[in-house]
Amino acid sequence: MEKNVKISMLNEIYGKLLTTKQYEIIDNYYNQDLSLSEIAENNQITRQAVRDILQKGEKKLLEYETKLLLMKRMLQEEKTIKKVLEEIAQIQDNDIDKKTEQLLKNITKEIRSLK
Amino acid sequence: MEKNVKISMLNEIYGKLLTTKQYEIIDNYYNQDLSLSEIAENNQITRQAVRDILQKGEKKLLEYETKLLLMKRMLQEEKTIKKVLEEIAQIQDNDIDKKTEQLLKNITKEIRSLK
Repeated sequence: MEKNVKISMLNEIYGKLLTTKQYEIIDNYYNQDLSLSEIAENNQITRQAVRDILQKGEKKLLEYETKLLLMKRMLQEEKTIKKVLEEIAQIQDNDIDKKTEQLLKNITKEIRSLK
Repeated sequence: MEKNVKISMLNEIYGKLLTTKQYEIIDNYYNQDLSLSEIAENNQITRQAVRDILQKGEKKLLEYETKLLLMKRMLQEEKTIKKVLEEIAQIQDNDIDKKTEQLLKNITKEIRSLK
């Protein structure tokens, strides 16, 4: 996975454990594609200070992932859910009765809510 | 939910974010039902020190849950998974063809892996 995508995802998952400033600056940089200079100007700090906040925040996000593995599990679960939904669609392609059809609709909705 | 059960579950989820000592003492107290005196003796510290470590650790666990809500989500997901498995069983009770039967077996296995 690309570093940008990874940090962005980790910030989504663990961002609430960072300081508000760390969360926001990581979000500005990785999601909103602001440059170091732009972030520095918006926050009235130096580019080096922005760089330090980014580095410290990223380090914390990676540490949380090493300990809790939530991103790894989420990605695995997403794959499983995708597979299940495909298999449900395969059953729906068969000749099934109304009752089964309704149950499969419910299941699909419930499975989607797990994402 | 009972406090004991809750703290025990939170320690399971977020324990890796605590110090090893905090994790172990919470585990001793809430899972293994050791008394404060027993834990104090095993760790060669006072009962008050045990109490302090417990309080500080519990406070951290509750803070993590306030921020990340993982326990809340897990409990919700467990309910959803239980419901889905029941609905799959209902479909299996109907007259279904071999192919559907096999797909439902796969789905059941995959859904169980989400727990």
